Amino acid sequence: MRTTTGWQVDGPTATLRRTLLERRDLRPDDLAVQIDYCGVCHTDVHALRDHDGAAGPLVPGHEFTGVVTETGPAVTGFSVGDRVAVGNIVDSCGECPMCRAGQENFCHSFPTLTYGGTDRQDGSTTLGGYSREYVVRDRFVYPLPPGLDPAAAAPLLCAGVTVWEPLHALGVGPGSRVAVAGLGGLGHLAVKMAVALGATTSVISRSPDKADDARRLGAHSFVVSTDPEQMAAARDGFDVVIDTIATPHDLGPYLRLVAMDGTLSSLGYLGPVSVETMDLLLGRKKLSSAGSGGRPATAAMLEFCAAKGITAEIELLPSAQVNEALDRLRRNDVRYRFVLDLSDLN
Amino acid sequence: MRTTTGWQVDGPTATLRRTLLERRDLRPDDLAVQIDYCGVCHTDVHALRDHDGAAGPLVPGHEFTGVVTETGPAVTGFSVGDRVAVGNIVDSCGECPMCRAGQENFCHSFPTLTYGGTDRQDGSTTLGGYSREYVVRDRFVYPLPPGLDPAAAAPLLCAGVTVWEPLHALGVGPGSRVAVAGLGGLGHLAVKMAVALGATTSVISRSPDKADDARRLGAHSFVVSTDPEQMAAARDGFDVVIDTIATPHDLGPYLRLVAMDGTLSSLGYLGPVSVETMDLLLGRKKLSSAGSGGRPATAAMLEFCAAKGITAEIELLPSAQVNEALDRLRRNDVRYRFVLDLSDLN
Repeated sequence: MRTTTGWQVDGPTATLRRTLLERRDLRPDDLAVQIDYCGVCHTDVHALRDHDGAAGPLVPGHEFTGVVTETGPAVTGFSVGDRVAVGNIVDSCGECPMCRAGQENFCHSFPTLTYGGTDRQDGSTTLGGYSREYVVRDRFVYPLPPGLDPAAAAPLLCAGVTVWEPLHALGVGPGSRVAVAGLGGLGHLAVKMAVALGATTSVISRSPDKADDARRLGAHSFVVSTDPEQMAAARDGFDVVIDTIATPHDLGPYLRLVAMDGTLSSLGYLGPVSVETMDLLLGRKKLSSAGSGGRPATAAMLEFCAAKGITAEIELLPSAQVNEALDRLRRNDVRYRFVLDLSDLN
Repeated sequence: MRTTTGWQVDGPTATLRRTLLERRDLRPDDLAVQIDYCGVCHTDVHALRDHDGAAGPLVPGHEFTGVVTETGPAVTGFSVGDRVAVGNIVDSCGECPMCRAGQENFCHSFPTLTYGGTDRQDGSTTLGGYSREYVVRDRFVYPLPPGLDPAAAAPLLCAGVTVWEPLHALGVGPGSRVAVAGLGGLGHLAVKMAVALGATTSVISRSPDKADDARRLGAHSFVVSTDPEQMAAARDGFDVVIDTIATPHDLGPYLRLVAMDGTLSSLGYLGPVSVETMDLLLGRKKLSSAGSGGRPATAAMLEFCAAKGITAEIELLPSAQVNEALDRLRRNDVRYRFVLDLSDLN
């Protein structure tokens, strides 16, 4: 085994403490990656909330960038010194129809998650990217395109691909009318990508004070979700509504914004959601959901972002401030993504 | 006012009794239609269950065929003696974006339903097709194509267009893989139409004894929904799943049958439904809903059915047996649609 340093919780507490971690010795197709930057995702908050220590220690973090420091003997696509990125999936069965279609995120035997997952070979629980080193199968490592700032690119690996997948799958392009509900870590990337794809893009937010930011990000209009008149005026107006609101909420108001035959894509795992049939029925609307992405989509998203100069708007903090970052994220006090600088773990 | 005879409930009872009904005098764009045949729809069962007499008498029936007996002075498209058909909508605002798009069923100020609706001019409650005559605005009357049996065609006007709309909107055609869940009034028409559209069509049913019928209707395969092995083998196998099950139920097993980027279309008004986000998320699947259809879709559906020789499989009963028909429908004891012969009301 190898050791590294990271931020971990052990028992039923949500406070991370610095500790030594073990990483596996490299398998033939493994890379060792020195993690430089790791984004702080809402999933991390949920995981810490649900953590009771029964399943062992938890190290969050599943969107990171860094540098290859060592390669297994079967690795051909990467060399020591390469800048790389890793997202929230580090393995999958590789054999089911979804994996064969390049949708490892939908793997029938469930993909191995970057933290809190079960390693497919040794059965150990994966420990995430709030640490200085990660050992990962080469198939789930992406070259970081030159020109993308490694810190601001880290959130692309989870937030970015999560919004990219539905935009891409729903055929968003020039002429599309897209609304992004919620202007947070996912939402602000959805706006940038939708605009770059050529869509007429609106932001739906309960915070009128985000209107200036929305326009700065490229949005063409802004709808205050708590204003019934504005919501009524926007009714049936969008081919695609990307709902990035991270907590369970009534989908009805957002379905009513969808144009006939359009789609509301609800991002991330919200558990069971209740939908009023009539909200779907009146306009032949569709409800979809998306989260994460497969390997081809992740690679395509990174290429697209490099071509269009898209990265996240971040607040970069030394990793020693991870607990503060999580507290502020719990209060939605972030514009728009915290990224941890892990060089303080040396 | 004019009088006719029909089957009505007054107080909080579900038993229909024969009574005299009033119909309005013809407006300039009205037709009087002698109703010959009226289908018995699950909606009728629900309406009778929910009826407490507070809203006045209830006359069900919203899929019927008959003959024009009189025309208002502004009517140009119909003549006395024409065979016609009427569905579950008899008026709409005509001005909202949905009406202008020919989707009167999604009218923003709600379409006027054939029974239990509120007339847009005099505010009266509409009385349905379990009667010998109906007075209706010409825009919501469809010529019955020659060659379609008027009794077996009656269910096309509600059940038929309700399954036609999603098949059409979701682009079902040669090469599509379609599953129809529930082989009842809607389901058996969905099978006939999907097959006629060129789709590879499966039936999903809890009743293994319907397998022979499914094949006779043209289905290429049959899946017993209570058999976990058969359901697992069918997983991710269909571009479109048309769920015709008329009572609230867990959508999860049916979502799992949908292929990546495919759609589960849940038909009819089920009220609030609960969906496990993960069932949508794992495969970027879509949930949609449909019910009824607009004027262009209804006309197109009738033309398609005439061209392909599609009508419902019916059990024709004298209208005096309406209560028996409803009782049997409540027990799902019908293959596949009851149609009332209203000539006994003369």
